[in-house]
Amino acid sequence: MLGLGNVGQGVLRILSANASAIRDRIAARPVIKKILVRSLDKPREVEVDPALLTRDVDEVLSDPDIRVVVELIGGIEPARQYVLRALEAGKHVVTANKALLAECGEELFEVAARQGLDIYFEGSVAGGIPVLRALREGLASDRIDRVVGIVNGTSNYILDAMSRTGVSYARALADAQAAGFAEADPTLDVEGGDAAHKLALLTLVSVGVRVDPNAIPTEGITRVRPFDIRAADELGCVLKSLAIGDYRGEQPVVRVQTTFVPKSHVLAGVRGAYNAVAVSSEALGESMYYGKGAGMMPTGVAVVSDIIEVCRDIVGFTEGGPPPGAFRTIRGSAPGPLDALECENYLCVHVPNIPGVLGRVASCLGRHGVSIKRMNQDTPDAGEAIDMVIITERTAEAKVRAALAEVDAFEFSLAPTHRFRMLGEQPA
Amino acid sequence: MLGLGNVGQGVLRILSANASAIRDRIAARPVIKKILVRSLDKPREVEVDPALLTRDVDEVLSDPDIRVVVELIGGIEPARQYVLRALEAGKHVVTANKALLAECGEELFEVAARQGLDIYFEGSVAGGIPVLRALREGLASDRIDRVVGIVNGTSNYILDAMSRTGVSYARALADAQAAGFAEADPTLDVEGGDAAHKLALLTLVSVGVRVDPNAIPTEGITRVRPFDIRAADELGCVLKSLAIGDYRGEQPVVRVQTTFVPKSHVLAGVRGAYNAVAVSSEALGESMYYGKGAGMMPTGVAVVSDIIEVCRDIVGFTEGGPPPGAFRTIRGSAPGPLDALECENYLCVHVPNIPGVLGRVASCLGRHGVSIKRMNQDTPDAGEAIDMVIITERTAEAKVRAALAEVDAFEFSLAPTHRFRMLGEQPA
Repeated sequence: MLGLGNVGQGVLRILSANASAIRDRIAARPVIKKILVRSLDKPREVEVDPALLTRDVDEVLSDPDIRVVVELIGGIEPARQYVLRALEAGKHVVTANKALLAECGEELFEVAARQGLDIYFEGSVAGGIPVLRALREGLASDRIDRVVGIVNGTSNYILDAMSRTGVSYARALADAQAAGFAEADPTLDVEGGDAAHKLALLTLVSVGVRVDPNAIPTEGITRVRPFDIRAADELGCVLKSLAIGDYRGEQPVVRVQTTFVPKSHVLAGVRGAYNAVAVSSEALGESMYYGKGAGMMPTGVAVVSDIIEVCRDIVGFTEGGPPPGAFRTIRGSAPGPLDALECENYLCVHVPNIPGVLGRVASCLGRHGVSIKRMNQDTPDAGEAIDMVIITERTAEAKVRAALAEVDAFEFSLAPTHRFRMLGEQPA
Repeated sequence: MLGLGNVGQGVLRILSANASAIRDRIAARPVIKKILVRSLDKPREVEVDPALLTRDVDEVLSDPDIRVVVELIGGIEPARQYVLRALEAGKHVVTANKALLAECGEELFEVAARQGLDIYFEGSVAGGIPVLRALREGLASDRIDRVVGIVNGTSNYILDAMSRTGVSYARALADAQAAGFAEADPTLDVEGGDAAHKLALLTLVSVGVRVDPNAIPTEGITRVRPFDIRAADELGCVLKSLAIGDYRGEQPVVRVQTTFVPKSHVLAGVRGAYNAVAVSSEALGESMYYGKGAGMMPTGVAVVSDIIEVCRDIVGFTEGGPPPGAFRTIRGSAPGPLDALECENYLCVHVPNIPGVLGRVASCLGRHGVSIKRMNQDTPDAGEAIDMVIITERTAEAKVRAALAEVDAFEFSLAPTHRFRMLGEQPA
């Protein structure tokens, strides 16, 4: 094992608590030989034989008895170097490192294939929910049209808290940090970068297409206001940060977006730090996979299940090659443009309460082909700022963008228009 | 293939529609060689080469080119004979036949193990939702404490229709039959027998324990009245037919029961003919798997994914042995007694509106240790029959049964007490 943080300690616990059941499932016993740590004497929650600990990665990588390296360091470097060296040394790899796989997967998978070694990574998306296995094996016979996932627990926790208590984003973030559900620097979570990494992996497993996670358009949750939360509620919706992949065209249309989700949708009920991935596939239709998306034990479950799978391959002499059900041909693709994407939109236009303003906004939208489904505004005193809420009919993305560029350039515009996409109703 | 009914035609469609993706996943191409049918010239929804059809099962079982037999006949005989003969002839088996596996699994798995052959059966539980794979592989590292499933689409469709429209059971059943969601003889579905078969398989895969499906206590949905549905609604609940397995003790405590489910529970939102299985496991906590539980294409997805898995084993020379992650040691067990099971209960006592009756019922419950949480009754004219609704505190099953036996034996009792168990709140 490389790393003995949160997830690493969960892995140790699960391996020891369920040792006999695991032995029964694979007719073999995985044994921890060495654990790379930064500090040998730091107090830890789990009991661990001090003789297993080392600060020298070579003790792991050059030990010929070690067949599987479990990488739980996180981040790109030095994790990338260590994984490459493990593969070069003929060791299988299990990892829960979405950043590493999404950014450097091509290189790592290529080396593994050349060496005839496994790389398993269930823990990298949606923690313990076996969604990658479901997509790869359970739906191996089907054509996946779309995935819509709540895959960042921090964002969901914050939005859920804002919905339940009405507090501001800043307050909800501070509370999440205090409760251990957000990092001190939450950027990767709340700006959508983490979800983009996971979406790249969902796309790889769903349709065998590799996209650059840095090219995935992301919308964070930092600009969500209590006003938007209340407006969503009045429209029968909740705000969710969704990772969405549409796979019907040649290029995958992927994005992370903060979205109005109808309360009747299966994803609307996903609370707190839970994760869920809804999948639309041609033959099966709608399916959903739900559970705890992060944490010591949930992610530990995924990592140890992967260890079991690799051990089974070793015992059965079936090592190497892609995992069961995986595509053998992976192609790279740029993300498809969002221009043609069609949905309803929530717009909150910031304008002063002056006669004629409403008409100019409405005409501008109309000129760009954006039809208004309904419109609401507070009625403040004349001349004061108003938040004018507009719900559009289903409209292509390009038209909405062009219209908003013009609206926001009006001389009377007080601030850029707040805009969220709305998810269509789906069979629940 | 044995059988070309609904699911069989779905299998053909999926194999042909996704042929190239399937070939890419396994570096091999599954080819249909023969299809056993009852009628050669019956019109069918899918186009099929008439040369593939045969009415003689020997043409399938004695063809040495055929490596995999896909059994889609359903029922015990002749399916059992055919599967046994296929295994004796050295052919792998894929089936979606829950009755066959739940009743005769021991015999079939034993012959398969002796012959070094695979039996895959994802399609037998919850149609296309890959829940057996999730339990077997995804949670291979975890200890499964409990499964709670909506696994009979017909029952769920009928209860859902009763909730939405207020119609009687008889009317909802007739509508479901007209819509193709219930059989002409719905007994196996509405009395819980089908769910018991599936629960036996969920138990096998979750904890490696074989229970006789005929020994599983089942409660059908036929006695559900619009009155109960309304009472549930007023209590913030919906009625669901649940297959429940508790695996914390030595013996699995299994049952199919019509249950009050809080609307906030993840299973409450499972509508129409959808299925879902909620799993509690020690490390992961709550997870859920949701989707279409039956029908040509959903079940076809599961069957073809199993075919892919078997073909992969054939191509990789890894045939035989238990499927990935499965327990190697299966033990048989009688279902554990329900006596110690604790839950809240909905009781509807049928008594005349006579002074003193209420007191006698309440004292009788109290004497048996059944505490009353709340009590409601219509206020009809004196002497007329009333439906007295009582919600109990959490009470052991044995106490509730003893109390009701006495209540129902009172001289003033007009009909046996209506009783449903209530599901506890769970993190959603």
